[in-house]
Amino acid sequence: MKQVGSQTQALDPVNGTAAADARLQHAALIALDWGTTSLRAYLYDAAGNVLATRASTAGIMNLPRSAEQGGFDAAFDDACGAWLEQAPGASVIAAGMVGSAQGWVEAPYVDAPANADALVAGIVRVKAAGGVTLHIVPGVLQRGDLPNVMRGEETQIFGALGQDTGAVDSSKRALIGLPGTHAKWAVVQAGRIERFHTFMTGEVFAALREHTILGRTMDTPDRPDTDAFLHGVKIARDKGQAGLLATVFSSRTLGLTGQLSREQQPDYLSGLLIGHELAGLEAVLAQQHNSLAGQQLRLIGNEALCERYRVALAQFGCTHAELVKYATERGLWRVAAQAGLVNPTPQAAHAG
Amino acid sequence: MKQVGSQTQALDPVNGTAAADARLQHAALIALDWGTTSLRAYLYDAAGNVLATRASTAGIMNLPRSAEQGGFDAAFDDACGAWLEQAPGASVIAAGMVGSAQGWVEAPYVDAPANADALVAGIVRVKAAGGVTLHIVPGVLQRGDLPNVMRGEETQIFGALGQDTGAVDSSKRALIGLPGTHAKWAVVQAGRIERFHTFMTGEVFAALREHTILGRTMDTPDRPDTDAFLHGVKIARDKGQAGLLATVFSSRTLGLTGQLSREQQPDYLSGLLIGHELAGLEAVLAQQHNSLAGQQLRLIGNEALCERYRVALAQFGCTHAELVKYATERGLWRVAAQAGLVNPTPQAAHAG
Repeated sequence: MKQVGSQTQALDPVNGTAAADARLQHAALIALDWGTTSLRAYLYDAAGNVLATRASTAGIMNLPRSAEQGGFDAAFDDACGAWLEQAPGASVIAAGMVGSAQGWVEAPYVDAPANADALVAGIVRVKAAGGVTLHIVPGVLQRGDLPNVMRGEETQIFGALGQDTGAVDSSKRALIGLPGTHAKWAVVQAGRIERFHTFMTGEVFAALREHTILGRTMDTPDRPDTDAFLHGVKIARDKGQAGLLATVFSSRTLGLTGQLSREQQPDYLSGLLIGHELAGLEAVLAQQHNSLAGQQLRLIGNEALCERYRVALAQFGCTHAELVKYATERGLWRVAAQAGLVNPTPQAAHAG
Repeated sequence: MKQVGSQTQALDPVNGTAAADARLQHAALIALDWGTTSLRAYLYDAAGNVLATRASTAGIMNLPRSAEQGGFDAAFDDACGAWLEQAPGASVIAAGMVGSAQGWVEAPYVDAPANADALVAGIVRVKAAGGVTLHIVPGVLQRGDLPNVMRGEETQIFGALGQDTGAVDSSKRALIGLPGTHAKWAVVQAGRIERFHTFMTGEVFAALREHTILGRTMDTPDRPDTDAFLHGVKIARDKGQAGLLATVFSSRTLGLTGQLSREQQPDYLSGLLIGHELAGLEAVLAQQHNSLAGQQLRLIGNEALCERYRVALAQFGCTHAELVKYATERGLWRVAAQAGLVNPTPQAAHAG
């Protein structure tokens, strides 16, 4: 697959230059990363280059009007209407919560282990008011006592896997982490998502900080305090036996004893939670005769957050954590190509 | 110590009968359990019988007016003014957050291990506007990498210990649990609080339910669902290796897969959290060559909540968990007596 994203440009599709307009006419694919609280749209040429991007807050729980009143159509038209006018032949693909039971149309989960072919087979179509068909990528479900689900991350993971060069032995088991509100850790092998775990780290951090006594003694620091963060990671790693419900109270008590300032407490708590996440992941890996130490893993997500995870992972002996960029754009393109929605050309349409 | 509380009566101190008035004149002690969100007041005769109780929502974070504007005095007068008019010679003692840095006057923590004498030695006095002196019981602090603090629970624990009959060998190490917003587990021996642990179980449950995605798929059941609760406890006990951040997500995903109804999810999540608390406690006990299995422990707190803990404890092999009633009233009386604030008489003043 062609390396996309390296030429990402944010063009205004309405007021763009004539040259940009000409490029937009060659657009081959519109792809949407449509989550709960945000919507990102990407426009690609036939070679997979991203010509333009748009972002809005019209996530599925934040539509401009209710779903019954055409909220999905309205949000889609706001984001992509101008693109579709200029490139009416472009295919449209979407991944994320837009395919959930609360989404535009439900694309039932495909079971793990799942490869890209399984995702393609699970695509569900919905026709927008303007007549264009959206292809909704399904999420992945892992059944069991502790079922796991993902929607959107599967597409990012296939974006990361599609980027593998010959230097990567894709037949070997590897680990991909996606930090965030609901952090995911996926074990991948031979182009498949074998199994995965969810940690509600980001959302629990926000709930603890905003809605428990822990937030009352915290002040936001001017810049992230790496020492306080590392302190939290190490406590979770070395003294976390009693579990998160016990260790988080130390964010308050270390303040009471003068060992942690108000400005240090947010990063300390963040370190505690990420430390517990990694300790939990380590325990699960151990059951699979695996370990974080020495792993060559990949991270997908917000760069600053991934950097926090790299710092924390090093405390678990994992010093090779590579940040994968443009995983969303690459993944959407890859699934669209595999679904036959685009016919990738070897040359960029706008070359020269 | 005389068994108090068994004759607990809630008399209206203003509109009571003449007989009640006569008893109030013999009141020897007013004791306050003054926490963050509530204030409970107890009036005792010289034998330690509770003559009357009052409760209000005037916790230290919920005063009728600000502390600077005499909020503590106002709340105290509202609760106990009428009692003091009728029994002006009564001593006054208070325990709980009223002695914190945000309280009426700070009663600095005493260090664990701590016995009742240490509490008495740490009492701090404050004079109310009406002239009466309040004796504020200090909390207990356990220093270390994960410091622990309690305020109010130490008094309840000494209330439970004071109730020990000759059948209890107080020289043996024992465990006392205080379920709640911030659950405490104390190891006691020879009349001392040796060490203790805090689990933010109640507050984390509320934050997860009210302020995360988990609450969105929950409905409140008509009655507690013990099966769903036990399911959560067992998952935490047997499949909790990945930790709380991972297991709580199953409250949602078991709903998505149809394994848990909306009405079952609250009790399942409650079971998960209490299960993680007990698994964490078990891990800490193991470090001390101890275990929950076979423990003869005591529980202090809300009866329905303690019953949940009894059900959960049985899953950890602990089938002897005795509910201690009136621990607060007994503890306040005991500390007051040990401080010389009352001279316990062997007979009830209102006998006959």
